[in-house]
Amino acid sequence: MTQIEAVLAQADAGDDRAVRTWMDWLRIPSVSAQPAHAADCRAAAEFVRAELAAMGFEVSIRETAGQPVVLAHHAGPGEDAPHLLYYGHYDVQPPEPLALWTSPPFEPVVVDGPNGPRVVARGATDDKGQVSMWLGAFRAWFDATGTMPVRLTVLIEGEEEIGSPNLEPFVAANAAELAADIVVISDTGMWDVRTPALTTSLRGMVYMQVDLRGPSRDLHSGSFGGSALNPINALTHALGGLHDAAGRIQVPGFYDGIADISPELAQQWDGLGFDEGASLREIGLTTPVGETDRTALERLWARPTADINGIWGGYQGAGSKTVIASEAGAKVSFRLVPGQDPQAIAAGFEAFVRARLPEGAQARFTVLGSAPGVEIATDGIFVAAARDAMSETYSKDCVMIGCGGSIPIVESFRRMLGIDSLLMGFGLADCQAHSPDENFDLVCFRGGLRSHVRLLGKLGGSENG
Amino acid sequence: MTQIEAVLAQADAGDDRAVRTWMDWLRIPSVSAQPAHAADCRAAAEFVRAELAAMGFEVSIRETAGQPVVLAHHAGPGEDAPHLLYYGHYDVQPPEPLALWTSPPFEPVVVDGPNGPRVVARGATDDKGQVSMWLGAFRAWFDATGTMPVRLTVLIEGEEEIGSPNLEPFVAANAAELAADIVVISDTGMWDVRTPALTTSLRGMVYMQVDLRGPSRDLHSGSFGGSALNPINALTHALGGLHDAAGRIQVPGFYDGIADISPELAQQWDGLGFDEGASLREIGLTTPVGETDRTALERLWARPTADINGIWGGYQGAGSKTVIASEAGAKVSFRLVPGQDPQAIAAGFEAFVRARLPEGAQARFTVLGSAPGVEIATDGIFVAAARDAMSETYSKDCVMIGCGGSIPIVESFRRMLGIDSLLMGFGLADCQAHSPDENFDLVCFRGGLRSHVRLLGKLGGSENG
Repeated sequence: MTQIEAVLAQADAGDDRAVRTWMDWLRIPSVSAQPAHAADCRAAAEFVRAELAAMGFEVSIRETAGQPVVLAHHAGPGEDAPHLLYYGHYDVQPPEPLALWTSPPFEPVVVDGPNGPRVVARGATDDKGQVSMWLGAFRAWFDATGTMPVRLTVLIEGEEEIGSPNLEPFVAANAAELAADIVVISDTGMWDVRTPALTTSLRGMVYMQVDLRGPSRDLHSGSFGGSALNPINALTHALGGLHDAAGRIQVPGFYDGIADISPELAQQWDGLGFDEGASLREIGLTTPVGETDRTALERLWARPTADINGIWGGYQGAGSKTVIASEAGAKVSFRLVPGQDPQAIAAGFEAFVRARLPEGAQARFTVLGSAPGVEIATDGIFVAAARDAMSETYSKDCVMIGCGGSIPIVESFRRMLGIDSLLMGFGLADCQAHSPDENFDLVCFRGGLRSHVRLLGKLGGSENG
Repeated sequence: MTQIEAVLAQADAGDDRAVRTWMDWLRIPSVSAQPAHAADCRAAAEFVRAELAAMGFEVSIRETAGQPVVLAHHAGPGEDAPHLLYYGHYDVQPPEPLALWTSPPFEPVVVDGPNGPRVVARGATDDKGQVSMWLGAFRAWFDATGTMPVRLTVLIEGEEEIGSPNLEPFVAANAAELAADIVVISDTGMWDVRTPALTTSLRGMVYMQVDLRGPSRDLHSGSFGGSALNPINALTHALGGLHDAAGRIQVPGFYDGIADISPELAQQWDGLGFDEGASLREIGLTTPVGETDRTALERLWARPTADINGIWGGYQGAGSKTVIASEAGAKVSFRLVPGQDPQAIAAGFEAFVRARLPEGAQARFTVLGSAPGVEIATDGIFVAAARDAMSETYSKDCVMIGCGGSIPIVESFRRMLGIDSLLMGFGLADCQAHSPDENFDLVCFRGGLRSHVRLLGKLGGSENG
């Protein structure tokens, strides 16, 4: 029996405890967005502090301008060992609307799902479940060997769900203490329940709000129609030109700097056999949008988008009101890919809209979020180890996938610490993260835990130990 | 002293009573839109019934499916006399928002305004004030002569402010009883406080709602952006193409059937010296919209428009939400001019939008209102009498103007009874109809009352009586 096999046997023996610890953590309603839960956030940090301390980590709870950060270190076998920085978050999304939950969001229950038993609770996957997987892997190593096979730094923050407003300053102030060879993050998904995946690209985002003002007050459309500027007419005209007939975004310079994906990735993605038609049918649609000359997975993972996330103005009630509104507005976001500069996109969008507005329209632009796209190198010993760990756990090749969403911290770590991230996630498409009845399948939790056991062992040289 | 001069002297003597009667009527909160005010609507009808009965009219209150109609007849000098059908309404707009009123909306007060004393109350102008003018004129004729100089039918409805849903059936069922030579309506405005006006054109309207459905549920824009149809993107694209750069509306066939205004009207309108820049400055604007090759008054009175009156979809709150909404919608209205067929415009708009929607977008179109534009002949004895009556009252030529808004009943009377309307209105631009602090200047009330005294006298042959 190799050392890894011994630790995996210990993981089996400790399975009950790992699930129980995860469920206990879920009972703490650590909702970072809601000030009433500030004490719960601290309790969730305290919970994980104790867990890490019990495994021989040096742990501290560090104050920030917001929720505290848990920072922990384990020297492992010593200075020559690889040094991994595990990142996660203990805060969760608000559970509302409560009426849509089958069971109370902070009373985790195990129910039957399509893949066997699953835990249902707010944070079940995102991110307490995924963090609990690697805490469980640490525990298995600790219980089996009394130590860790690599050097570890653990950073668990409490404001990810509100945009991590205090994390960059924290990383900047503690860069030396956070030095490591690679970051490990479990906050993404598998390809499907049987196919493990390493996420190697993330889209970035620029999120903007446009507020338009026309006349100084609401007007009667009979008295003023044909003379007075209608801000809703102006807004729809400006935003209605964002795409051409081929799905290309018309903001000047929008595609500047974007490279096509590598042949290796293109081949990987083609091999996934993604059925876009089935994906669309599930949400009541038939025909994809986006660039007509790109494959579905390119459009979802490697090409930028422009989506109006909200729009408002004038009369929205029942029946008719003949009003020319004074104001209108919209929220518009662009998913970005590597090569695109968020600031340039924001400026380009503003210029694009202004050029399409009639004289006299007063427009205000607000940037509500900004992060570049990230592409992670697919070579190197860490990526190889992560893929091997997952492939062996699942007896199936770990695929490399993209993620259409954004995890801004990945870019922050690269920029501020100079290190890449391994995105080893085990969520499934139906895990309902951010929605009622959030859940995490036990089969995913166990596969994730074992994948982390193997990753630690491989990097610690325990392959044949 | 001519007979008209005698009646005008009687009007002077009866001025206090006329104003008091008007103010008493304003105390009845006859809000047709609010079911709680049903009894008040009936009381307002009863009030005017008594007033007409006291002047020798045969009056009845006729039930409808909604608020009752007051219908009254006076034989005047007999069958050879001209027969006028006076139309007005006793219902008023809801007074809300109450907090914006300087005094309670149903406690009329006389305050100082820019043109001397004015009455402030809901309905002060629209339409109790304007109806009270002609009731006052009837009273002057009755008190001075014991009868009316012409045959009169009076129709006062109680649902004008909710779109007169029961009036057309009533007119159809009582067409014989409503037979007359001309309709007289006071529900429009003067050119300015010193310049009386006959309104000879009204724009019509088609008011539509578009409801668009994309995916069957709200989606995460990271997971689905680039594949899933975004109904807000689709809606802005469809509606954003309504106008070209020259302000022309792009619905196919939109301008079919429209004739230019007559040289006589064009000359009248040019002579008004309308200062569009000043009108726009007052509402915080600088540059007119609409067709660039038309004059301001053409654009306001004689050219059709397309205005989005409301739009909605997705996230409208603070901050950002990365959602692709399931639904979006808009209210779009077209002001129409004579020659345009409302049904064809509605169908053309639907076809225009559908042609610009991506495959898979499900659109529902609802017509919320429909009425053609109306142009009233500017020749004939009735128009001449009305213009003369107003010109003499004000010692200033009565001008012929257009109205950008709609009074659908004018087209109904023409279509169902075969008769035109004299639109003799005395409201001013700042009368705040439909808004808080609705008001009517006493100088306008008195000028209107005297104009109606003269009109009745002229048509009754009392010019030199």
